[in-house]
Amino acid sequence: MSESASLPIGVFDSGLGGLTVVRELVERLPNESIVYFGDTARVPYGPKSARTVQRYAREAADFLQSRQVKLLVIACNTATAHAYDTLSESLEIPVIGVIEPGARAAAAATMTQRIGVIGTAGTIRSGAYDYAVRHRLPDARVYAQPCPLFVPIVEEGFATHEVARLTAREYLTPLTEVDVDVLVLGCTHYPLLRDVIAEVMGPAVTLVDSAAETARDVERMLLEQNLINTAAPVRHSFFSSDSPLRFREVAHRFVGNLVAEVERVEIERHDQA
Amino acid sequence: MSESASLPIGVFDSGLGGLTVVRELVERLPNESIVYFGDTARVPYGPKSARTVQRYAREAADFLQSRQVKLLVIACNTATAHAYDTLSESLEIPVIGVIEPGARAAAAATMTQRIGVIGTAGTIRSGAYDYAVRHRLPDARVYAQPCPLFVPIVEEGFATHEVARLTAREYLTPLTEVDVDVLVLGCTHYPLLRDVIAEVMGPAVTLVDSAAETARDVERMLLEQNLINTAAPVRHSFFSSDSPLRFREVAHRFVGNLVAEVERVEIERHDQA
Repeated sequence: MSESASLPIGVFDSGLGGLTVVRELVERLPNESIVYFGDTARVPYGPKSARTVQRYAREAADFLQSRQVKLLVIACNTATAHAYDTLSESLEIPVIGVIEPGARAAAAATMTQRIGVIGTAGTIRSGAYDYAVRHRLPDARVYAQPCPLFVPIVEEGFATHEVARLTAREYLTPLTEVDVDVLVLGCTHYPLLRDVIAEVMGPAVTLVDSAAETARDVERMLLEQNLINTAAPVRHSFFSSDSPLRFREVAHRFVGNLVAEVERVEIERHDQA
Repeated sequence: MSESASLPIGVFDSGLGGLTVVRELVERLPNESIVYFGDTARVPYGPKSARTVQRYAREAADFLQSRQVKLLVIACNTATAHAYDTLSESLEIPVIGVIEPGARAAAAATMTQRIGVIGTAGTIRSGAYDYAVRHRLPDARVYAQPCPLFVPIVEEGFATHEVARLTAREYLTPLTEVDVDVLVLGCTHYPLLRDVIAEVMGPAVTLVDSAAETARDVERMLLEQNLINTAAPVRHSFFSSDSPLRFREVAHRFVGNLVAEVERVEIERHDQA
């Protein structure tokens, strides 16, 4: 076991969506501690420009590095799309994003090579899924659809409301018309809308949730690098850039009682030091 | 005319909603120049905590002061609710928020003293409208309803879509049931939803848009303080903390061609200096 193995895994997201990845990590790797940062003071990242999201991602990574993490998970599709390359080049620890795992699962699942991808405006505009899927399946057709209202709908607790159903019909009907057989939920908030999405897409379409795939990649990376924790006791810590109270409240929708305490951190100061 | 009269008016909002106030200012005060700042890198303010919004408002005010403005308009209800008091106490220039003007107009318009107020979660939670209305009409009943999805619906261009109509019905039906005769649009984004809101509320309910009322207050204050511009040529400047491109694109929905050029400013740096 490497010396760093007892260190926690760092995970960040624009807000709370990344907790869907935390849930999968905890299930798959029960001996690993997690430090989670949700940038709730600046959520959402989806509609914002690549440059702004890159700066935010860098600040989040700096903060998590200051907490001594052994591996960094970018649990946000928009941040992965805009900042994965620069972060994985510049950091000394391994970096895992959510796009590669999702694209790989989609490529494995499709029979017709007609793949749908839904995500924020930023993720879709980046073309990152299209690139990652066609790297594996050069002849695949990738139909990408931005769904900008899905994140606020989830964050406001409207995931099972008629508004969610109507919005899903609006966004997804074009994808049903082009006959995709796989749909990638390309945003860590979307698993909370799985039921309405499945209803609109119908039973013939396989939904790919990158959270589970990402946890699998994290396990593989830890094994490869001899970083599996066997010694230190497990302890999860949660940080948010806005009110810890609201974080805990909304986090319940994602991971139940896993989030005990949340600490506030003023992330913007970090790159000034 | 005072020496400062030739200086511009500073206006800020979390994003683009404040442009509804700019539109009214330009119409009412065509000889005044405006410096507008939209904090699009951190929009929305509505769901965020008082403390975070106070910090953002202070940074916006510092930036506008660095541009030599003669008066500051907080063209955001959430920022007014959380930061009006501290800003108006600490700044040397006059500060005008959007809540007082809206509350005054509502108090003047109601016949039944049953007033509805809609706004972001932060604005409603602050109780600022309730306080401002009952300061004038102690016996009034104020029915406050947070409408957290309205801002993303407007920012995503869904204002005339069926999703907007359904969301409006969901939020506003309780207000129709308590028979308010006036409804305050307590968020500068909401005038863009005026049609669907009017449809749900029915013709008997007067809608109060604080943008027009705020412009009236600005004029009164400029007159009182001898700050009306009669000399300098008119020039409007627009700044945003995220991509100027997207700002200009969405601004079109609010003010047509008024926004010619937009400059990006990294607002977070300002309180570090």
